[in-house]
Amino acid sequence: MENNGEFNKEHKEGLYKAIYARRDIRGQFTDKPIPEQTLSRILQAAHHAPSVGFMQPWNFVLIRSLELRKQIHSSFRRANKEAEEMFDGDKQAMYRKFKLEGILESPLNICITCDKDRFGPVVIGRTSNLDMDMFSVVCSVQNLWLAARAEGLGVGWVSILHNSDVKEILGLPESVEPVAYLCIGYVTHFPTLPELEAAGWLPRLNLGELVYDNLWGRECLTEWPELHKEINIKYGEKNDI
Amino acid sequence: MENNGEFNKEHKEGLYKAIYARRDIRGQFTDKPIPEQTLSRILQAAHHAPSVGFMQPWNFVLIRSLELRKQIHSSFRRANKEAEEMFDGDKQAMYRKFKLEGILESPLNICITCDKDRFGPVVIGRTSNLDMDMFSVVCSVQNLWLAARAEGLGVGWVSILHNSDVKEILGLPESVEPVAYLCIGYVTHFPTLPELEAAGWLPRLNLGELVYDNLWGRECLTEWPELHKEINIKYGEKNDI
Repeated sequence: MENNGEFNKEHKEGLYKAIYARRDIRGQFTDKPIPEQTLSRILQAAHHAPSVGFMQPWNFVLIRSLELRKQIHSSFRRANKEAEEMFDGDKQAMYRKFKLEGILESPLNICITCDKDRFGPVVIGRTSNLDMDMFSVVCSVQNLWLAARAEGLGVGWVSILHNSDVKEILGLPESVEPVAYLCIGYVTHFPTLPELEAAGWLPRLNLGELVYDNLWGRECLTEWPELHKEINIKYGEKNDI
Repeated sequence: MENNGEFNKEHKEGLYKAIYARRDIRGQFTDKPIPEQTLSRILQAAHHAPSVGFMQPWNFVLIRSLELRKQIHSSFRRANKEAEEMFDGDKQAMYRKFKLEGILESPLNICITCDKDRFGPVVIGRTSNLDMDMFSVVCSVQNLWLAARAEGLGVGWVSILHNSDVKEILGLPESVEPVAYLCIGYVTHFPTLPELEAAGWLPRLNLGELVYDNLWGRECLTEWPELHKEINIKYGEKNDI
């Protein structure tokens, strides 16, 4: 594949389609197995994320063992109980109804980690901001998520877990931090909208209100008139990408 | 565009091409202006990243002002001086030769931020892990980076900056943290390899050594024989994706 050529219309459409059609999947998993060649492609996509100082701090722990997934699920239940208590009244009742993970129903869980000692201690670009290695791993997660979507696989990120539990259950070394605990598998369908948007928990923000000109809070109407018009049109109201 | 249809061969190719051909650009910027409609498309892509609890914590500050970019560049020079001192001997000499930013040469800088107070204080999924909002913003950065690549635009992430300087220069509120300071523009070319790999600073790791079966350190040869074979073939040695 030629990496430096231009992207034709179909290529661009494919990328944008993955971006817009990607969903956080919790309740739609089927038990259809994931072909190993497909899994290989999405892991290679993750491995080709940008990384600070080219340190490639990621590892991928593939968790199929039901015994281990049950331990992770118990950890989720404890963390979720704590989370519930943080919401008040109606919000708490609504929160309790959300399905927030698919640990046991998905055929595969993947824990993506950050090895803070890799090629260390001094890493190019991690000198002023010590979280840059974690951020590199998140770029890797997003690559995997998009590649999975293109392959027809759903991914859900389970963030309601204590890292200390995950470290202990999977036997991670001291210097290795879990960044993302993912559930992955084929799905009955990809929901049209994010579930929290569809449920009326929060609305999609208008991009026009999130973009500033040069300084925080300065709207871009004067300096960027055409952009200002475009970002105030909701995606979906336009036919072209 | 139908979001739920399958991805055809060209669509998949487009996504994988963006993933593999994306580069961190520092030295190849041209001053060709970015059309506002193109900028709109990559900002919409960023805005459609996953976010914890659908909080969409991001803002995008578009920095064209040369005066502001000069202030950011001074901040980079100070942080980079500190960074240089952290490397020893030969590594320090090599470090000094790397070009690590394109703040003044690129036609546009974008600071992507995280508003920790948005829809807060309690956010679904940010209850056990308080960094999840920052991670959501990084997913947004990666979406923007891939979309930019498909549009023929180079992006460089400048991480050698103190967040306190960036906050002051751009006037960010107390609750808003800079996550990524990006330089963006058309380029003379996209390098074939990451620059630090091409320069022999660090090698591309073999994915086969980064993937474990169920527990940290357990190789996947027995349980995942086909996957084990695939992830030990370097990308580029295969013709199909």
